[in-house]
This record gives sequence, structure tokens and C-alpha cells, in this order.
Amino acid sequence: MGMAPVAHVLFNRFMNFNPKNPKWLNRDRFVLSNGHGCMLQYALLHLYGYALSIDDLKAFRRIDSITPGHPEAHDTPGVEVTTGPLGQGISNAVGLAIAQAHTAAVFNKPGYDLVNNYTYCFLGDGCLMEGVSAEACSLAGHLQLGNLIAIWDDNKITIDGDTNQAFTEDVLKRYESYGWHVLTVEDGDHNLDKIAEAIQKAKEVTDKPTLIQLKTTIGFGSKNQGTHGVHGSPLKADDIKQLKEKFGFNPEESFAVPQEVYDLCHKAAAKGAAKEEEWNQLFAKYAEEFKAEHDDLVRRQKGDLPEGWEKNLPVYTPSDAAVASRKLSETVLNKIFEAVPELVGGSADLTGSNLTRWKGAIDFQPPATGLGTYAGRYIRFGVREHGMGAIMNGMAAYGTVIPYGGTFLNFVSYAAGAVRLSALSQVRAIWVATHDSIGLGEDGPTHQPIEVLTHFRALPNCMVWRPADGNETSAAYYVALTSKHTPSILALSRQNLPQLEGSTIEKAIKGGYVLHEVEGADITLISTGSEVCIAIDAVKELKEKHNIKARVVSMPCMEVFDAQPKDYRLSVLPDGIPSLSIEVMSTMGWEKYSHEQFGLNRFGASGAYLDVYKKFEFTPEGIAKRAIATIDFWKDVPNIRSPINRAFTQLI
Amino acid sequence: MGMAPVAHVLFNRFMNFNPKNPKWLNRDRFVLSNGHGCMLQYALLHLYGYALSIDDLKAFRRIDSITPGHPEAHDTPGVEVTTGPLGQGISNAVGLAIAQAHTAAVFNKPGYDLVNNYTYCFLGDGCLMEGVSAEACSLAGHLQLGNLIAIWDDNKITIDGDTNQAFTEDVLKRYESYGWHVLTVEDGDHNLDKIAEAIQKAKEVTDKPTLIQLKTTIGFGSKNQGTHGVHGSPLKADDIKQLKEKFGFNPEESFAVPQEVYDLCHKAAAKGAAKEEEWNQLFAKYAEEFKAEHDDLVRRQKGDLPEGWEKNLPVYTPSDAAVASRKLSETVLNKIFEAVPELVGGSADLTGSNLTRWKGAIDFQPPATGLGTYAGRYIRFGVREHGMGAIMNGMAAYGTVIPYGGTFLNFVSYAAGAVRLSALSQVRAIWVATHDSIGLGEDGPTHQPIEVLTHFRALPNCMVWRPADGNETSAAYYVALTSKHTPSILALSRQNLPQLEGSTIEKAIKGGYVLHEVEGADITLISTGSEVCIAIDAVKELKEKHNIKARVVSMPCMEVFDAQPKDYRLSVLPDGIPSLSIEVMSTMGWEKYSHEQFGLNRFGASGAYLDVYKKFEFTPEGIAKRAIATIDFWKDVPNIRSPINRAFTQLI
Ligand SMILES: [Ca+2]
Ligand SMILES: [Ca+2]
Repeated sequence: MGMAPVAHVLFNRFMNFNPKNPKWLNRDRFVLSNGHGCMLQYALLHLYGYALSIDDLKAFRRIDSITPGHPEAHDTPGVEVTTGPLGQGISNAVGLAIAQAHTAAVFNKPGYDLVNNYTYCFLGDGCLMEGVSAEACSLAGHLQLGNLIAIWDDNKITIDGDTNQAFTEDVLKRYESYGWHVLTVEDGDHNLDKIAEAIQKAKEVTDKPTLIQLKTTIGFGSKNQGTHGVHGSPLKADDIKQLKEKFGFNPEESFAVPQEVYDLCHKAAAKGAAKEEEWNQLFAKYAEEFKAEHDDLVRRQKGDLPEGWEKNLPVYTPSDAAVASRKLSETVLNKIFEAVPELVGGSADLTGSNLTRWKGAIDFQPPATGLGTYAGRYIRFGVREHGMGAIMNGMAAYGTVIPYGGTFLNFVSYAAGAVRLSALSQVRAIWVATHDSIGLGEDGPTHQPIEVLTHFRALPNCMVWRPADGNETSAAYYVALTSKHTPSILALSRQNLPQLEGSTIEKAIKGGYVLHEVEGADITLISTGSEVCIAIDAVKELKEKHNIKARVVSMPCMEVFDAQPKDYRLSVLPDGIPSLSIEVMSTMGWEKYSHEQFGLNRFGASGAYLDVYKKFEFTPEGIAKRAIATIDFWKDVPNIRSPINRAFTQLI
Repeated sequence: MGMAPVAHVLFNRFMNFNPKNPKWLNRDRFVLSNGHGCMLQYALLHLYGYALSIDDLKAFRRIDSITPGHPEAHDTPGVEVTTGPLGQGISNAVGLAIAQAHTAAVFNKPGYDLVNNYTYCFLGDGCLMEGVSAEACSLAGHLQLGNLIAIWDDNKITIDGDTNQAFTEDVLKRYESYGWHVLTVEDGDHNLDKIAEAIQKAKEVTDKPTLIQLKTTIGFGSKNQGTHGVHGSPLKADDIKQLKEKFGFNPEESFAVPQEVYDLCHKAAAKGAAKEEEWNQLFAKYAEEFKAEHDDLVRRQKGDLPEGWEKNLPVYTPSDAAVASRKLSETVLNKIFEAVPELVGGSADLTGSNLTRWKGAIDFQPPATGLGTYAGRYIRFGVREHGMGAIMNGMAAYGTVIPYGGTFLNFVSYAAGAVRLSALSQVRAIWVATHDSIGLGEDGPTHQPIEVLTHFRALPNCMVWRPADGNETSAAYYVALTSKHTPSILALSRQNLPQLEGSTIEKAIKGGYVLHEVEGADITLISTGSEVCIAIDAVKELKEKHNIKARVVSMPCMEVFDAQPKDYRLSVLPDGIPSLSIEVMSTMGWEKYSHEQFGLNRFGASGAYLDVYKKFEFTPEGIAKRAIATIDFWKDVPNIRSPINRAFTQLI
């Protein structure tokens, strides 16, 4: 309630939007970073005429409503990004502002100021305390994002009570140190003109984001105003009654909105609709003069990729050289960057290791720095993995770019909070996650992932790819880029991998496939990434030394494999044969696909890559030993059942 | 190499330590937050006489050496905390300083300034960019930790190149905004006196942590000094040669240390040893005057708990009221806080939800605030989960406290980077992780964990507990507190849970046990936490409506269950009966214990708790339906094998 006055000023006097078309490209974006206050946002959306009825408001926090306990972008028209986990919304707002600046730089032309919207964000003390927002806001200052305006609900209260218990830093000074423009409104409860003045000033500073400190009283109007007792708890009945009387509503009616309030809001909305109409005319004119750009922008907003882009994906044969999959990923980027102009991304200060930059890429930088331009497509995120993840979510939500970000696989975990929201809010964001196992060698256990793939495989609507060679790397990019509503993590090796006999893009895009088949096989070996070629060597070892016939399945992406028809899955993992999974990290989750599991359920070791693999027996001999144990253990079981068979299907 | 001059000044002129006893309580702590520069730290430890030989240095980054690619506390004498993942070390340093301030406040007496050490930390640009350090350093400023001195290697270079690409904020201004004392040394390459002067000034400011900006040249002395080409890459042979000549070493010898260098270092070490000797005498005198405190401090350093503390753990019978396990956890804290005085912790601004504060607790606050004292044991961490996790690691490393921290289970993910290091560096840190499932209800999918338990179960050396009732909650605390080298996550419910017939602390500390046995069972139901009581209701449903006999296993902690002897595990999950796991989150990992899995492999929903459970069929009927499907599916399989049976054992 403390933010109701500023929300009124912002929506009524400043923001451009058309409730009848919540997807209008040049609308101003509104992000409620302190998402627990979402009743305010739902109420605004309702009042201004978005497709959100009084009944929807009444169903607040009820099952299957479009008004859940925190705002979810894919559920509710007018909600731009999914917020609630603190610090995410403001970081998403930085991503929205980056995408806006980039889209403007690419598409605006003299006389065609097509893209010039602002991103407004409300945030509370909690958002300011979270490290993710510190990362994103430091970068926003560096990037001089003048179209970003954040309004801090400075109510001196958090859930634990007074902010002086834990949060006594000088916030404005901190934001100044980031390069932000900062302002204060002393009386955020009453002084609407001062609020408007501050927003106006913020708009006038075009080379810095602005933070407005708005001093408010939590639960303003409530009998408990100014205490943490009103933080997220519903008001008591008598308090609601006195509050309604105080603000001129009929205390006996619930959810009764005076007609003059609707009228006021609908008038503002009509202005927004007119603005869109004007914009549509401009865009039609643009189509005549800049046909290619126009069509490109239309296409991007649909989420479709340019026709034929996939022809650029590299294809390999076994005679091609062994190459690290991080390097194969670099080759993909070099081949497709021209064909997929909406691909915009970078690395969290590991460009030379992640190999995320194509030749001749221009950096996304403020032109004043001389280091690049806003039309540049390569982002220097700095050592800010969590910020990068949340920024990617905002960029994707803008609707004109596909973001990607590089770091070591192990440090995608730093960004777990943001990756979770990528999945929940169904955005296409791509993690280029190199150094994907103990195979990174010398850096040692602090950098070697063990639990990371399991973690993100268990996250719903998140694809984890671990390609074994060049064709599988191309397949991973193909599926990641064509999955409009799902984020992807591409786990890529530091060490070289041979190009495999039997791999193709077509097979790999099924998530799992038979790489090596043999009549009358004694065992199925299932593996991913850098261990697939060792499994292939184990086939030889088993045949030559033990007269055992093994078939090999490559499973670059479990989630995609799970989506295949059952008969296909059973053809890959058939009944009647025992199976062994091989992956140099946690075995957790592999029981779903294999009878026995060879993995690493402990931390790794610092040493040369081959020494580390040998220590943990990830060699043809180590695999053969366990394959024999598996065959032995299952030989008495008649009619061995493939793990694909299940007693019942899971709810989706 | 840029930090070699300051390291020399710090170790030689300032730090108190005895290489012959790296565990001396009052030693100054040194943390290398930019852990990739660990060769410097290893070299220092060697020169000063820690148990680290020239051969150990030669084995740098080789398999099974004590000189891995990043410093690991449990591997190498003299390494206080495990660093490398950026931002962690400086945050650990905050934890070390908190533990120091607390230990001093509790144990120092007039005439006995027993605990007064400093914590020194080196950090680089990467550490400063990470959000985790922002969280921890903001709190450090609030807490006025005067004994914390951080030295920033300001070399203007990161891996991607010049810091002006992504990191142009005003760092000193930011730290001032946090309430830190800041200083600059212009010539950190040469001017040892200015360096010493700055450290001296830092020590004199006792009510603020200090950040010293040390302007250095990366790879100082190398032909490529000042470029990112020397960041983490070994120097070329000719460069090493000219470098040795420049600094007066014999260019033909590797690892040859001039005797005068050893002499200098050993002289400083001898001074440290004398200081310890002096301290030991003081401590012996303290023993005479303050016997209880003396013995308490000795005990704490061993990691042992006070004799008989566990008698305070509450025990329940089925006639006791149904209570949420977060509330049961609060009861445990209230019962044991007196008996376990080293328990020090708090919450990330969710005290009233996590119920982490015992009655009458005193806050850990600077006395000047009037809000508490340094002897206080309740920490207001603020909305800073990742910082809290890293601070807990530092607190545990100090050696006199056992840290705990509260947040919602879903937001332990924000701290994944720190939890991973708790596990790797083998520290006893306890997460009180409430609101552990869709059972939190209205807050909705943004707050409802799905993948979180799987994630941390897959993390080696990390216990995940999900107690089903009061006795299991007591058991969780018992094992968490007595496991000296393993962190724990206690997943606790928001909703009430009945006290179960058949649960005891003794059974539950085995990690999994038979809660309900029945002769000639048709199926085993395995469950955890809030679903166990529904499984018990499903037993009735199955018996009464379907004449099916079900036994129930409660599995509060998989990791602890895995450590039991095989015959015990087989008695819990026997051969010959099909089994079904029941847990309202990702099924991933449950295939290891059960034949079929009932879970939630999608995001949850916002609504009243019971409505959400019903939507996803977590009801006696929903369980019964799947139990019947399981029995049906497995009826044709003769000699059903328990999943406990495996073809081979995993490497540890
Ligand atoms: Ca607040
Ligand atoms: Ca640096």
C-alpha cells in the first residue's frame, strides 16, 4: 500500500501502454521487484483494463487463478517478468533495458524513433540487500542505461523489523558509486507532485539509470502503518473498514471500485492505445522504407528464427579432428551469428575460456566508452553469474533478442535462483557452460562439477545438454534455439573429444539415440559428453579381452529424450538387456535410464586431466570392469525390464 | 605476483602465527579470496615453516598433492578456508571476524585479552564483482567489524582484459557506503613502507572493517606485466629466467630459495611461536581464575559438544499435538540453546517464518547500536542468503562456534555456491530451511521447491534432512550437531504434522527406518517429511478399500541411510516386495531406493495448502491409486530385487 501513490502517478501520468495489447513492442515496461506486493499490480492491471476481472482479483492466491501469490509472467496479462524471489525483478529490469537499448540501436533510423520505451521498476529493501541486484545494478551503471528508472520503497521496514537491524548502508551513495543518478522524494505517501517531478527528472538524465528513494510508510493508512506487522500479512477486518473510510470508499463493500476511478484509469489507457495506433502508423511507414528491418523485427517478436538458419550448423564426420566441445560451440557461434541476428550474449569474464565470442564481434557498450556500441551483440557481464542469469531473463522477456551467457558449468550454480525463474517463466535463455567435469583438470575440486547436472535435470522445463562431439553440439544449439519457451544449459568440455562414428544432428535432437548397435548385445552402455568416446573404447576392450558384446547409447539431453514416444525410447533402451550408465559426476537420476550406474559421488581432484580420469577409473578398463559386474549381477534375472517401463505416468 | 610485496609485509611485520601449530586459537587469519593465486600462499606457507615442503610446491596442481589448483582448507596446513570460487573468501573472512568478535566478547576478561586476532583477506576485482561479497561486506559494515582488514589487488585487469570493460564502479565509495574505512596505497609494487603504514592505520580503526586499495601491476616483473595474458597462465621459460635475474635469484635453479630468505621468514615465525607460548601461559592462568570458561573454550576447539546436551532434545508420543516441523525446530532450539552455547546463528530476514530465534535470545550486534552485543548469539543476516552461507563457512572455520542460518528451502539455492564449499571444506553448518514444499501454499511456484532436495542430495558430503514429526526433528538436530565435518540442510514444513506412531530419535538417526510394519506386505511405501502421515493414511485406505497390506518406511535422510550396513538397509527395503516412493517434489534420485516413484516433476501452484496437495493428488487416495498400479506392474516379476542390491559399489 505504501507504493500505491507512486504507482498511481507512474501509471496515470508517465507510462505508455495499451491494456488491449499487452505485447505492444514500444510499451513502457513495469517490473514489481518486490513481488510479494503483487495485489497492487493486479489491482492496477484490472483498473486500467487489462484482461483481469474483479473475479480474478477475488481469486487472489487461489488455486488455478491468474492472480497467484507472486506475479508470474506467463500466467497474467500485463506482467512482464516473474518476480517474488528477491533481487530478481530489478535485475530483470536491467535486462529489459539492455534489450531496449540494443533494439533501438539496431532498428531506429532517422525519423523513426521506433523503440524508445522506459523500464520502470519498484523495489524494496530486500531487493537491495540481495547480491544478484548488486551485480546487475553495477553493470547497469557501467552500461549507462538511461532508460531504466528504479523506485525504492524506502519504508525502513523488513520482515524482521526495522532495517537498522541489518541494513544500515548508505544506499544512494552505493548507487552513485555504480554510476547511477539518484534522487530522493521525502514524502512518498502524499506528495504526488514531488513524485512526478522526480520521475520527470529521471527521464531527463539519459546516460545514467536512476534510483529514486521514495520515503514511504509501510501499510500507509492502516492502523499498524510503519510496522513490520503489515508486511505480507492480510489486514484485520476492522482495519480494512477504517482504511476504506479514510480513503473515501464504502466500508461495507468489498472489491467495489467507484466508477470515477475506472474512468480516470481508462482515460489513461485510451491515451496509451492512441499512442500505439500512432506507433503502428509509424511502423507501417518504416516498412516501406526499411522493409528488411521491418520484417526482421516482426519475425523476432514472434520468436521465430530466420528461415534456413539451421543450414549454417556445422556437420562433422569421424575423420574430422578431435576438438573440445567448448571449441565446437565457438564454431557454431561463428557459423550462425550472421544468420541469427537476435542472438546477443557474452560471458561472465571468461571469454577466452568459454569461447563465447565470434570473430569480429562488436561489444555491447555505451558508445561514449569507445569500446563498442549499443548495436554490439557481445556483452561483457563481468564476474557476475547470478546477475547475468537474471539479466538474460529480462532480455528474453523484452521480446526481440535471444540471450546467451557463458561461465564454467560449476558456476551456473551461483545463478541457480535466476535459472529457476528462466524455467518457471518459460524464457529461451542459453547457458554456455564450459569446463563441465573433472576433465577440467588442474583447477581442482572447487571448480569441478559433481551435482550440477543433476540439479538442473531435476529442475522442470530446463534442458541440460552434454554433447559428445560436433554433431551433438550442433544438435544442442538447434534444440536450444528452437525451443521458444525453455531455457537450456549446454555443458561443454575443456578437453578434446573425437568426432564419433554414428552421430548425426538428426539423431541427437531426439535427446538420446543408439550410437553403436550390435546384434545380440550383452549390455547397453549409456553415456554423455566426454565419456561417450571412452565407452566406445570400452566396447573394443570388452569384445577383445572378454568376448562381450556391448551397444552404446549417447544421451545428450534427458529432458528431450523423455519427450520422445515410448516405442522410440524402448528401441534405444530395450527390454532384455542390462544397462550401465557412465558419466563422471553424480549418478543421481541415472537410475531412471539404466540398471547400474558408474559415476562420481564424491568431489574430484586437482591434477592433469588424464590423471584425474585414471584416478577415478574412467578408462576403457574401468568401464569394462563395471560392465562385466553388471552383466554378472543381472544374469539370473529373466526378462530384464527396461527402466523405460513404468507402473504409472507422472502428472504434468 | 602482484601481491607478493604486500604478502611479504603482512606476514613479516604484522601477522601473528606459529607455523608449528597452525591451529593456535588466537592466530591472525589469512584468507586468499582470489584463490587462483594460491601458488603465492603455498610459497609463503613453505617459507615460513608450515608442513609444506619444496616437493609439495613442485607437485603444484598434481594429483593427490597438498597443493591443489585452489586452496583447500582440509588438505593444506595453514589454509584457513577453501577459496577459488570468487567472492567466497572475503565472505568467509567476514564470518571469521564475526566468530572472533563473538568469542572475544564471551571469553575475554579484564586482564585476559585472550582473543584479539585480526582477519586479513586478499581479494581481486572478481571477488568485488560477485554479489556474495556485496552481501557479506554490507553486513560487515553494519556489524562494525574492526578486526577485519581486506586488501584489494587493484591491478585493473580481469580475465577478459581491462576492468574498464565491465567494472567501472567506484569501489572505495561503495565500501564507504557500507560503513567501511577505506585507504589507498598508490604504489603497491614497490613501496613497502606505505603498505605497512596502511595496514597499521587499518588496525587503529577499531569500529569499522578496512578496505585497502592496493594499486599493483599484474605479473609484476614479468615481460607481460600489466596484461591479462599473465592471469592464471604459467609464464614462459624465458620470462621466468629474466624474472629471476631481475629479483636476484639464480636463473638456472628452480625452486631454489636463498638461505637468507628462509632465515628472515623463520625469524618471523619464531616470533609467532613465542607469542603463542606467551598466550599459552596467559591461558593457563585464565584456567585458574575462570575454570568453566577455560574448559568450555578447550572443548569447543575440539568440536565436541557438552556432555549430556542431547538429553535436552524433545521427545514426542502420538498423543502430542500436530505441529509444523519449523515449529518443532524452534522447540529444539529453545531446549538446547543453553546446553550448546556455541550454537550461533540467525535468519536471512525471515525470523518469524523460520522460527530460528529462541525466547530471550540476545542479538549479535555492535554494542553502539543498542540492539544487542557481540556476545549475543542471534544474527540478523538481512536478505542475504548467499552471504549468510559463506559467512557460516567462515564462522565454522574459526573453530569456536557452530553456525546455523534460516531461510525458505527454495532460497537455499541462492546460496548454492557457499553450500558447495561447506561440503567440500567439511564444515559443520546448519541450514534451517523452512517452507519446504508446495505445502507452503499461497506463495506459489516462485517459492515452492521442486528440485532443491535433489540438488543437495546429489552434493557429496551434505546431509539433507526432511523430518516427518517431532522425534525425527530431534534426530535431525542430533546428527547435524554431532557430525563435525558435514553440513546439514533441515527441510521443515510450514504446515502442521502429526506425531507419528512408531517414530523414535534412535530409529530416525539411521536416516531411514520401518515406521509401520505388517506381516506379508504387498508393498513398501517410502516417504519423507509431510508426506509420511499421508502415506500412513494411505495404508488404511489400501487395507479397507482394497485389502492390500502396505508397510511404511520413513526416510528423513538418504545420506545417513546410505551409511548404514547393507543388512540393515535390506531389512528396511527388503527383497520380494515392490516399493513406491512418495515425496511432493522431483522424483529424481528416488529410483535408487524404490521401484516406482510418486512425486512432482513440474512447478507447483498458488493456493491453500490442502487445495494444492489435492490438485497434485497427494492424498491417501492418490497414493493408493499408485500403490495399486505399482503392485500390478510388478506382480509378474519373480523374486523382486530390492534396489539396495547393486552390481558394484561406488568409489568414495
Ligand atoms: Ca521494506
Ligand atoms: Ca584483477
